[in-house]
Amino acid sequence: MRKILIIGIGAGNPDYLTVQAINALNQVDVFFIPDKGVEKTALQLLRKDVCERFIADPKYRMVRIPMPTRAAAGADYRGSVDKWHAELVEAFSGFITEELGEEQCGGFLVWGDPTLYDSTLRIIEHIRKNGLALEYEVIPGISSVQALAARHRVALNGIGQPVLVTTGRKLAEGFPNNLDSVVVMLDGDQAFKRIEAEDIDIYWGAYVGTKDEILVAGKLSEVMGDIERIRSQARMEKGWIMDTYLLRKGDGK
Amino acid sequence: MRKILIIGIGAGNPDYLTVQAINALNQVDVFFIPDKGVEKTALQLLRKDVCERFIADPKYRMVRIPMPTRAAAGADYRGSVDKWHAELVEAFSGFITEELGEEQCGGFLVWGDPTLYDSTLRIIEHIRKNGLALEYEVIPGISSVQALAARHRVALNGIGQPVLVTTGRKLAEGFPNNLDSVVVMLDGDQAFKRIEAEDIDIYWGAYVGTKDEILVAGKLSEVMGDIERIRSQARMEKGWIMDTYLLRKGDGK
Ligand SMILES: C[S@@+](CC[C@H](N)C(=O)[O-])C[C@H]1O[C@@H](n2cnc3c(N)ncnc32)[C@H](O)[C@@H]1O
Ligand SMILES: C[S@@+](CC[C@H](N)C(=O)[O-])C[C@H]1O[C@@H](n2cnc3c(N)ncnc32)[C@H](O)[C@@H]1O
Repeated sequence: MRKILIIGIGAGNPDYLTVQAINALNQVDVFFIPDKGVEKTALQLLRKDVCERFIADPKYRMVRIPMPTRAAAGADYRGSVDKWHAELVEAFSGFITEELGEEQCGGFLVWGDPTLYDSTLRIIEHIRKNGLALEYEVIPGISSVQALAARHRVALNGIGQPVLVTTGRKLAEGFPNNLDSVVVMLDGDQAFKRIEAEDIDIYWGAYVGTKDEILVAGKLSEVMGDIERIRSQARMEKGWIMDTYLLRKGDGK
Repeated sequence: MRKILIIGIGAGNPDYLTVQAINALNQVDVFFIPDKGVEKTALQLLRKDVCERFIADPKYRMVRIPMPTRAAAGADYRGSVDKWHAELVEAFSGFITEELGEEQCGGFLVWGDPTLYDSTLRIIEHIRKNGLALEYEVIPGISSVQALAARHRVALNGIGQPVLVTTGRKLAEGFPNNLDSVVVMLDGDQAFKRIEAEDIDIYWGAYVGTKDEILVAGKLSEVMGDIERIRSQARMEKGWIMDTYLLRKGDGK
């Protein structure tokens, strides 16, 4: 039976690779490379780095999967994502059947951790539900959330308190009640500007773990403007940005 | 100046070690080993395994730090934790000054990721605030949350949705409003029994990543009893248990 390994390669630093991920890399006959999105450049570099450094016998092939373009979300966010997923399932399924032999092992290299805001896992499940026999395994990786916290040397949770991992889109609805710690990903709009900044600390990071890493921390009300400026300049210079931040209310730290 | 490395070694499987963590291990002159809690046995085994497998030149020393006992939490959870922390700061500080040379590197091996429900980071910060000059660095590790999700091959978040990481104590107050995904750690009381189970899936795991790993998934209302039974039996047989679970509402998956 065909086997698929969904391999988390960490969020930026090749040294985030785990021993398990390295072992997995070395089993792969065909890497499937979705040609995608904003992180494209970063992902390409990391992927190349990781494969060259950690694969002992480079007998693998790389197969690019051209990505269907995703319609702008508009009001029906979930609907547009669903449609996009269906197209991805179609595309991935075709490439796996054509490019992977019955007894071979295919690999997907996922930025960060494959279980956090990544669609690979769901796509593979759908392909199986559609009837293609596949074995598959998920290899965890250091997510950008952990990279951010480690680089800021800050705990994700207040003592005995929960932590919410959410998106910019959701944060824009307001800082959640009854929580002191919120990690925000996928924020193209700097939603932190729209919340009540009183008594909140921010730990912000862009390109975390890479050589371009930028870290800013401080009272949200005081550093908000700096972050906005630094972010837009970095984004202009590189052409893309990946940033994440932890918001901490009160003395939760 | 003395240097401290707070090294995440992953939640159970030695193969979760990252390249960064392995490099860090190899810089350490003195490992400080807090003698602690429920995970003591597991932690001891993993630590031994990890050091033997990954340290090239075993010139390091191991120094045990006896742990002050923590008063039962009672009503004032935060207060009892604070007091315990103060005692830990005292103990760690003493051992670091006595056992670590001015130019040496000390290491703490932290189960899972050091930024998630672990006190080492806060203790080191307090020691610095108290005036001891220390350089320190945090090395992220695969947390039990990620190990759980990877082993169940389930995404932590619903599509475009947030995920809350919380404790059993907090879950006992009810399944949070407006969320579909909740990860529960530190639950000695099986708080999942006390929530409205309608329309919730559970992905439960004990000793995840270790050879004793147990995984159960299904509708909460249907598998709740099984989990309770399996959990109490495993706990009895081994003398201790570490378990975590993801609750997913609706078709969020
Ligand atoms: C589609 S999600 C993928 C998350 C990934 N699976 C992970 O575990 O980190 C992409 C988002 O992750 C965050 N992100 C990923 N890598 C990052 C990095 N190196 N620095 C800062 N943020 C990052 C950003 O918020 C970005 O919008
Ligand atoms: C004090 S917290 C430490 C968490 C750790 N820093 C991490 O990143 O996973 C201990 C809790 O983590 C969870 N846990 C840790 N390791 C686990 C494992 N291997 N399997 C299941 N749960 C685990 C349990 O909920 C346990 O009560």
